[in-house]
Amino acid sequence: MNLKQMVGIEAANYVTDGMIVGLGTGSTAFYMVEEIGRRVNEEKLSITGVTTSKRTEEHAQALGIPLKSIDDVTHVDLTIDGADEISRDFQGIKGGGAALLFEKVVATYSQKNIWIVDESKLVTNLGKFPLPVEVIPYGSRQLFRLFEEKNLHPAFRKLADGSLLLTDSSNYIIDLHLGNIEQPKKLAAWLDSLTGVVEHGLFLDIADKVIVGTAEGVKTMNVTR
Amino acid sequence: MNLKQMVGIEAANYVTDGMIVGLGTGSTAFYMVEEIGRRVNEEKLSITGVTTSKRTEEHAQALGIPLKSIDDVTHVDLTIDGADEISRDFQGIKGGGAALLFEKVVATYSQKNIWIVDESKLVTNLGKFPLPVEVIPYGSRQLFRLFEEKNLHPAFRKLADGSLLLTDSSNYIIDLHLGNIEQPKKLAAWLDSLTGVVEHGLFLDIADKVIVGTAEGVKTMNVTR
Repeated sequence: MNLKQMVGIEAANYVTDGMIVGLGTGSTAFYMVEEIGRRVNEEKLSITGVTTSKRTEEHAQALGIPLKSIDDVTHVDLTIDGADEISRDFQGIKGGGAALLFEKVVATYSQKNIWIVDESKLVTNLGKFPLPVEVIPYGSRQLFRLFEEKNLHPAFRKLADGSLLLTDSSNYIIDLHLGNIEQPKKLAAWLDSLTGVVEHGLFLDIADKVIVGTAEGVKTMNVTR
Repeated sequence: MNLKQMVGIEAANYVTDGMIVGLGTGSTAFYMVEEIGRRVNEEKLSITGVTTSKRTEEHAQALGIPLKSIDDVTHVDLTIDGADEISRDFQGIKGGGAALLFEKVVATYSQKNIWIVDESKLVTNLGKFPLPVEVIPYGSRQLFRLFEEKNLHPAFRKLADGSLLLTDSSNYIIDLHLGNIEQPKKLAAWLDSLTGVVEHGLFLDIADKVIVGTAEGVKTMNVTR
């Protein structure tokens, strides 16, 4: 069993009968969805899943997990999702899989959030991982120029064939290669204020628990704020 | 000649040869686009238009105004657009025509902005006109509930057939019936911070000049900040 699988299965243990569960996206979340699917089928676990991407939706559907849209539930009890980088104070960058918008929507309306990662994702400060910014296509090159002027080292996310990646909401992603983010909250507020920015990958004050796969086994850290 | 036509023609006078001009959307901007089209054809005025909606794009194209996307110009010299409400300190609400996102993109990258309105749009404080908020469909009902909880009197914008209006970016619009907006900047920052909000109709510190059609003729007000 690999590390991603270990943390995926461990996280699925926090899901109990009757819960409305946000199902994350990515290579670690994949194993959590697999395990929840197994429990639904083998243990008759009764839950409702809320997905964070078309990808996860198809996966969960194939496993027979009952699903609802975030708009058809009153709340989400628990969301389990991956992260691309987690700082020492448990702030995160997400969006490597281009699903940051729906992931943030679900996380925002979730009473608890668990992040599942392998230990390579734990860092002192955020920013080595490029920060994804989801932008409206119209005006995106003007935003790109603004990011260049501010020395934020932007790059449009592209597909293997060189075309621009389109998100599930038909937007572009500009990755900011920052190296180090000194003040995540200040950066988040500035990005939020920009016309044409739909969302960004800074997930601040969201994680309640972080489950980490390490060479010595699975470590669980509770976040207190 | 009606008041909207008078201010549309007056505003078009500020357009000069060689300019890149943002072309607004709405019933007053319509006459400005008509007049610029006339000057392009009859006076051989040479400009490049940047449009703020599919509607205006089709109109300008039909008139033979050369057009470029906001992403294919280095800057915009002047944008002329309508407004739904303008406060005594020249802050505005826009979005009655559902084009607020592209209007704000173009206005943001424009060196000068002229607003053209009839005098019914001038108010002391903003807020009698419902504030449009453009939102991602996924999660929009959760946002709606949040707005209800905060007593912001939200209503989804609908078409005549009762279906939800879709913007040019395939988003929904939630109109907030506020009555009076005490602190527009604070409200703008809060709306910007919400996950799922793409843009809102508060256009703050944008107008440089306001041209108003009144029963006594056209009045021009320069904004100093």
